[in-house]
Amino acid sequence: MAKEKGITPRTEDFSQWYNDVIMRAELADYSPVRGCMVIRPRGYGIWELMQRALDEMFKETGHQNAYFPLFIPQSFLAKEAEHVEGFSPETAVVTHGGGKELEEPLVVRPTSETIIYSLYAKWIQSYRDLPLLLNQWANIVRWEMRTRLFLRTTEFLWQEGHTAHATDEEAEAETLLILDIYRRFMEEWVAMPVVTGLKTESEKFAGAVRTYACEALMQDNRALQAGTSHNLGQNFAKAFEVQYQTAEGGLDYVWNTSWGVSTRMVGGLIMSHSDDTGLVCPPKLAPVQVMIVPIWKSPDQKTSVLEVGSKVAEELKAAGIRVDLDERDGLKPGAKYYEWEGKGIPVRLEIGPRDVEQGQVMVARRIGGKEPSKLDGLVETVSATLDGIQQELYDTAVARRDANSVRSVSKAQLTELMAGSGGFAYGGYCGKERCEIDIKDTTKATIRVLPGAEFRSEPAPTTCVWCGEKAVTEAVWARAY
Amino acid sequence: MAKEKGITPRTEDFSQWYNDVIMRAELADYSPVRGCMVIRPRGYGIWELMQRALDEMFKETGHQNAYFPLFIPQSFLAKEAEHVEGFSPETAVVTHGGGKELEEPLVVRPTSETIIYSLYAKWIQSYRDLPLLLNQWANIVRWEMRTRLFLRTTEFLWQEGHTAHATDEEAEAETLLILDIYRRFMEEWVAMPVVTGLKTESEKFAGAVRTYACEALMQDNRALQAGTSHNLGQNFAKAFEVQYQTAEGGLDYVWNTSWGVSTRMVGGLIMSHSDDTGLVCPPKLAPVQVMIVPIWKSPDQKTSVLEVGSKVAEELKAAGIRVDLDERDGLKPGAKYYEWEGKGIPVRLEIGPRDVEQGQVMVARRIGGKEPSKLDGLVETVSATLDGIQQELYDTAVARRDANSVRSVSKAQLTELMAGSGGFAYGGYCGKERCEIDIKDTTKATIRVLPGAEFRSEPAPTTCVWCGEKAVTEAVWARAY
Repeated sequence: MAKEKGITPRTEDFSQWYNDVIMRAELADYSPVRGCMVIRPRGYGIWELMQRALDEMFKETGHQNAYFPLFIPQSFLAKEAEHVEGFSPETAVVTHGGGKELEEPLVVRPTSETIIYSLYAKWIQSYRDLPLLLNQWANIVRWEMRTRLFLRTTEFLWQEGHTAHATDEEAEAETLLILDIYRRFMEEWVAMPVVTGLKTESEKFAGAVRTYACEALMQDNRALQAGTSHNLGQNFAKAFEVQYQTAEGGLDYVWNTSWGVSTRMVGGLIMSHSDDTGLVCPPKLAPVQVMIVPIWKSPDQKTSVLEVGSKVAEELKAAGIRVDLDERDGLKPGAKYYEWEGKGIPVRLEIGPRDVEQGQVMVARRIGGKEPSKLDGLVETVSATLDGIQQELYDTAVARRDANSVRSVSKAQLTELMAGSGGFAYGGYCGKERCEIDIKDTTKATIRVLPGAEFRSEPAPTTCVWCGEKAVTEAVWARAY
Repeated sequence: MAKEKGITPRTEDFSQWYNDVIMRAELADYSPVRGCMVIRPRGYGIWELMQRALDEMFKETGHQNAYFPLFIPQSFLAKEAEHVEGFSPETAVVTHGGGKELEEPLVVRPTSETIIYSLYAKWIQSYRDLPLLLNQWANIVRWEMRTRLFLRTTEFLWQEGHTAHATDEEAEAETLLILDIYRRFMEEWVAMPVVTGLKTESEKFAGAVRTYACEALMQDNRALQAGTSHNLGQNFAKAFEVQYQTAEGGLDYVWNTSWGVSTRMVGGLIMSHSDDTGLVCPPKLAPVQVMIVPIWKSPDQKTSVLEVGSKVAEELKAAGIRVDLDERDGLKPGAKYYEWEGKGIPVRLEIGPRDVEQGQVMVARRIGGKEPSKLDGLVETVSATLDGIQQELYDTAVARRDANSVRSVSKAQLTELMAGSGGFAYGGYCGKERCEIDIKDTTKATIRVLPGAEFRSEPAPTTCVWCGEKAVTEAVWARAY
């Protein structure tokens, strides 16, 4: 066990705090490979729970999993002009295999549109083969210059959905369906509210017609793009000749979508909820939801508290609660509390000799609050406590997000906000790239999204924040990860 | 949908039959990337069920999942002498990243001992950190010259467990625990009996002290190595300086194990059970266990059979059975039967207008047999039918394996067997590499394992099959995949 190290307070150095939380909770570690991280069991456990929940949502909506090659012939990337421009600079390239130089270098997939659509061209013949709704869970490599654990690493894990449809309308509906699944997942599981909407031309996925995104606000008031859903139109279908016979006997290109979320969400989870004591994890995504800490001095006491502790653990486990019992010798209860707080266990149950006598345990919440609960009905109490924490984390995050969202900003306000406290700034936008670039150069803020209907201001802004001309849309600015 | 293609009979060309079954069942496909396959949803669904079952077995025995980098610095491989010799020739090498040539080339992991033990050196300080029991689900790249779908591909999916222990005894116990988990999984889930035992020096994992393996016999009487479990001793611990402080205050190297099974098992499943009509899949690993085929002529009939079909589907689903309803128009029932037989669905339920009248359905088993069953109690009937198929597949495979296992072979028998029908040949072995090599050169058969206690012949052979000298052990020979 590496020596415990203090956690830098958020107010002092948010970035260092973030790394400290990860190290203290043993979620991940640096690796000897440039830009690549190791996801340790406590971090990977969170990712596994994320995967399980999302996978179920995908399958419920008719998607199936498949697996496509890690390597992509370099020439494939080049078939879609915007795509190659966007991804070429950050690829890792295999030039040698089996001791020989390859005739054509292979790119380690930075995303899989090209390899997947080359196969769709083979599998899709007629309208009867549509829609084709596939997803893959895979590792991805993008050669990043500046990396940060979970947020931006050369290799990361993600899911990428790739669908083909007979019409543009169906593809758009799929794009929005997935955006909604992502939003619900982030709200209901990660307890992380997001603003969803359309990306501008300059921020969209390389090769897409339209990109929608989920944007969350971290505790340092910077935005995190947590998931994207792309309507690819017929761009890739044309590049890879994915044609189908229509019901009427004609021939048409399919309409594609692609969408993904990654281990970056673990970073979002950490930065949404954690505090200066360490990780705070939403109960629904906590690999261990409840830690039982028995307290004893004499051997007799040890026997009796461990007996009750084991029984409680069994009962909770039978009820589907992820529970562990810390029976380690030679560590004081306080040291155990400190350790499990740092590791983000949502609920701690303390069982001492007096609790045993009184038929109760102490129920301590990671986010504050501690009270005794009778052993009788404990499962219900713990379940309700976990649900309550999940809800409270979400409510707190929404309140923080709303408190740091400023509507109808003026040019001066936008500039001041981005130089100062940060947050989401809503304002009118003329739609011209010139303003978008100028704002970015001046304030370092980017348009995170053109907000979807449910997030728009009432009344809608009428003039552009920056140039004062007529606004064609509302936009949300923030400095982003 | 690609056009249906006939399946080559097994007796005519086993290898072509295998490919035909995969194509007809849409389990996998070739990709434009040399040696890499695409795992299609029906194949990936089998792998997902395999993963879920194994993952549970690993977790029940105290293992946790983690994730380590895809790339390994080339110098790491070289730290363990046998290891680098074994794996260097088949690596894929990344020489360029982000548009620049790398200072040190990166190898795409052919297995992860080196990268993982370099991190164990950081995480393991004292005996309190032991045992460390990690597993990862990952993709692996080995540059193969001759590839076959599922059995041998340049990229494949697997799990690799890596553990560290305080003593040699604990490491050996772990190696055998996993071997037993693999054996049980292959018997109980894949319905594929295996012979387990020790590999010879020449067949063991590069860097291991001892390798144990599970060997299954395919329908063409060739052996398939379906899983391996390695006791690594202190070889890697010494190469990567993985030391720990003992309870007594001394310093020692840890003892490691590593073990893996891969998507190759899907190939084993196919070659164990399938027939000339297509895939036969054990019910426990079938993504769809039951296909309901309603039969109708008139619109009224359609309404009534679909109503019953939907109700049956719901009931089976509620009972945890993976079921689908084929309500496609414009396809005759016979065409549907043919399709689902080829795709290996274990049970087909046929529901026609007369069945509806009589309150029954026809229950047809993929492996033969069809009889009516009352709607009342159908869930129990279907469950029992699925269990029965699972057991029958296993029993049939055991009988086939035993009928093709010859005990106490003589030199002439071994030679004749391997030139003819193949199978497992048990015989005495002097333990000298000279005989092992000579047998391989002469018969193309290799020693699959030195069989474990439960598989050994009674009485034990006393002389070497080949040289006639004193046997030090029994061995099992076969021609292998």
